[in-house]
Amino acid sequence: MQTFFQYNWMVREEWYRWCEELSEEELLQTRTGGVGCILHTLFHIVDVEWSWIRLIQGKPDFVGSFDDYKSLNQVRKLDSEFRSEVENFVSNWDDGMENRLFYDTLPDGRIVTDTWGEVIRHVIAHEIHHIGQLSIWAREVGKKPISANFIGRGLISHSNK
Amino acid sequence: MQTFFQYNWMVREEWYRWCEELSEEELLQTRTGGVGCILHTLFHIVDVEWSWIRLIQGKPDFVGSFDDYKSLNQVRKLDSEFRSEVENFVSNWDDGMENRLFYDTLPDGRIVTDTWGEVIRHVIAHEIHHIGQLSIWAREVGKKPISANFIGRGLISHSNK
Repeated sequence: MQTFFQYNWMVREEWYRWCEELSEEELLQTRTGGVGCILHTLFHIVDVEWSWIRLIQGKPDFVGSFDDYKSLNQVRKLDSEFRSEVENFVSNWDDGMENRLFYDTLPDGRIVTDTWGEVIRHVIAHEIHHIGQLSIWAREVGKKPISANFIGRGLISHSNK
Repeated sequence: MQTFFQYNWMVREEWYRWCEELSEEELLQTRTGGVGCILHTLFHIVDVEWSWIRLIQGKPDFVGSFDDYKSLNQVRKLDSEFRSEVENFVSNWDDGMENRLFYDTLPDGRIVTDTWGEVIRHVIAHEIHHIGQLSIWAREVGKKPISANFIGRGLISHSNK
């Protein structure tokens, strides 16, 4: 489970560096699908990861708006502010937490039950999905997207690599 | 690990049903990014999943070309032909297989080492990434994409849901 987070953080960092070569206009330009622009996608990934990990622990989630984080530096700064708490949670993850229950109150008032195992996988898949969207928009701006490969990143150690 | 495969198969099946409402022309139309069209993406996901699971077991992989599978029914048929073998492998997955080594000969002749744990995560992330690309193209054809949510699918059982 932890290695998926490490993968996501590594890929996300590469996308931040990729974004450095784009103008602010390109980062904020409205695009078809997803949350509608490149930088908002990265903000959304950071927001959702942190919020879920806060929520299942019964802590208040993030209520900031993208309107206040409309530059690459602001998104990276927010990410780095959240990261240590997320890393701490993820590194202390163990199989015994898989079946803990989280009662989620939906906007319409219904209460649904998720296991922590579901929530953690939701967070992992959420980022990979949105990064897939960035890879299409990358080609639209004429640039090669960051590789989504999990292999070849040294994420799992093996002696005779 | 298994639940990520179940998630991918469930989402993939929903995309197949989603594709039923598109014309063959829309399914095959050249699009920006990814492998270039909706149906080819689904074919590629099926091909890559099966091929990796064959390769790490030392079995020959799939050598078919998308040119021979250019209809939704053909891709679904191929998927169903491969599925039982993939399901069997995934359902027998255990933590002891994580660190088994796979020696991969690259096109340039170099040999790299991956663990089975890396390969299995690569396959999982690969599909989620490409499905993210489909979600952008869905909006381009004016249709709502399939939800990428992991939660809410009943993938992990809990008593008081």
